Amino acid sequence: MISNMEKPYVVGIDIGGTNSVFGIVDTRGTILCSGSVKTQVYDKVEEYVDAVCKNLLPLIESEGGVEKIKGIGIGAPNGNYYSGTIEFAPNLPWKGIIHLAEMFEQRLGIPTALTNDANAAAVGEMTYGAARGMKDFIMITLGTGVGSGIVINGQVVYGHDGFAGELGHVIVRRENGRMCGCGRKGCLEAYCSATGVARTAREFLVARSDKSLLRNIPSEEIASKDVYDAAVKGDKLAQEIFEFTGHLLGESLADFVAFSSPEAIILFGGLAKSGDFIMKPVQKALEENVLNVFKGKTKLLISELKDSDAAVLGASALGWELKDIK
Amino acid sequence: MISNMEKPYVVGIDIGGTNSVFGIVDTRGTILCSGSVKTQVYDKVEEYVDAVCKNLLPLIESEGGVEKIKGIGIGAPNGNYYSGTIEFAPNLPWKGIIHLAEMFEQRLGIPTALTNDANAAAVGEMTYGAARGMKDFIMITLGTGVGSGIVINGQVVYGHDGFAGELGHVIVRRENGRMCGCGRKGCLEAYCSATGVARTAREFLVARSDKSLLRNIPSEEIASKDVYDAAVKGDKLAQEIFEFTGHLLGESLADFVAFSSPEAIILFGGLAKSGDFIMKPVQKALEENVLNVFKGKTKLLISELKDSDAAVLGASALGWELKDIK
Repeated sequence: MISNMEKPYVVGIDIGGTNSVFGIVDTRGTILCSGSVKTQVYDKVEEYVDAVCKNLLPLIESEGGVEKIKGIGIGAPNGNYYSGTIEFAPNLPWKGIIHLAEMFEQRLGIPTALTNDANAAAVGEMTYGAARGMKDFIMITLGTGVGSGIVINGQVVYGHDGFAGELGHVIVRRENGRMCGCGRKGCLEAYCSATGVARTAREFLVARSDKSLLRNIPSEEIASKDVYDAAVKGDKLAQEIFEFTGHLLGESLADFVAFSSPEAIILFGGLAKSGDFIMKPVQKALEENVLNVFKGKTKLLISELKDSDAAVLGASALGWELKDIK
Repeated sequence: MISNMEKPYVVGIDIGGTNSVFGIVDTRGTILCSGSVKTQVYDKVEEYVDAVCKNLLPLIESEGGVEKIKGIGIGAPNGNYYSGTIEFAPNLPWKGIIHLAEMFEQRLGIPTALTNDANAAAVGEMTYGAARGMKDFIMITLGTGVGSGIVINGQVVYGHDGFAGELGHVIVRRENGRMCGCGRKGCLEAYCSATGVARTAREFLVARSDKSLLRNIPSEEIASKDVYDAAVKGDKLAQEIFEFTGHLLGESLADFVAFSSPEAIILFGGLAKSGDFIMKPVQKALEENVLNVFKGKTKLLISELKDSDAAVLGASALGWELKDIK
């Protein structure tokens, strides 16, 4: 447990395309209070920072003021830890390179760090969750896309440019791979994200003729949640969609193990909560495909952070590592 | 440059299946003197250590004695840095887990570290070669097999168990992949090692009917050197073998970049010396396959260490990091 009597709190800000959520967090990972603003409303980033600060400052005051805050951590798409910038984020209203950490630091006088969502999730897991005490693990976030945060020797891997850890974009199908949102083909994300599961469902329904509850839903409307609901009801085709997805993910995880030999791989996000439907085939494919020397060594875990809190907690955890502004 | 006036030298020992080579190295990476013993002659590891020490001690004395040596670094197949052990090395005469670093330390009273050959090569490159000043790079050794040494934040990645960095065993062909020596199918090593190039030659010669200088060599005797010699003479088929090999390697490197976003990838070993025949297709496939955010950022380099010296230099470089025995 972190102990810091003079500055016992950190602030976490999670910036999403739709909402930005922020909260004040203590050393045990309890969110003492929180708030949110709509991200898309603010065309100018200055107005956005104003709005967040206007809502955040009363919360900070209620917990004893700015002097109680050790640091602010921000999780944001396309966030660069080294520069504290958001760079060319397609789903945010501000274009180009935005020096967001610096803006908050100047505005509030609190040291501020920024990284992408998946790296923030990894720091959160290491500080408050399933990776406490671990020095080597990989966090895989299975949401609309597939993200990753890699920790080696107790440090998040940022790479030489601050953008390392894009495991959603390793190629899992070299031939006839699915088109990915990144413009390439066959990426892990095109198969093992929530949207990937929905695409697999549509493919299976066209290619096969066996009956399925999913045939009651208009093809273009099928979401991964529908596949899960059908699987729970015993739908064979839906269960096989998860087996297919889990198998591909497990194969990729085996390659990741060859890279950094982590103590654990931690899955996070909607798909990870599909329980045994996804976890069993992932575990099976991981063990079947991993190099002999690693067999039986890598734990496959599910995140211990509550989904609703995880983004703010993850971002906040960055705050503990910050030094006071001189 | 490392400066250590009192203990200006390190010892490097490279243990191969056939020969073990050792040398005394200064801070500039000059091998002051060296020697070797046959590895396979010594059934008992105690006798092996005796033989190395008997040959090494006169060299140490000639450079001023044990007190001039900062540390000993050993590069060995299946070497584990954490425990200083060689574990179940198939090509060495000693079975099971061998506490080799400890044996040398007790015998000579000099602190000793041990790691696998590819990790040692990476440390050597960082200390004396193309990676000086770099904190994030990946070393790929293209020899009989394919090995790797990964450096992140200036530290070699050993993983939670000491065996990280097995990039020769990521899967590059998920379907109809070639059998690999590790017992699995489709590994990078099965394609991009010297033996992989020879296998590709045999496959090409059977599958195609165009003429080639390689048809003058009995199929089973073709080695990667023959392919190189033919390529130099303008043999189209031989050149295409390198293009095929380089393309596969470049595709894999693009995935490695997504993992750790290194400043450079450094190729080492026989194949890397096939010059443009291999480097051009590697560079092309790397740039074509890498995620947009990394395009044009990763340098592709050839090792600056002389082949004959590299193994001893790499191993010796570990010695600089060692602390005196208390």
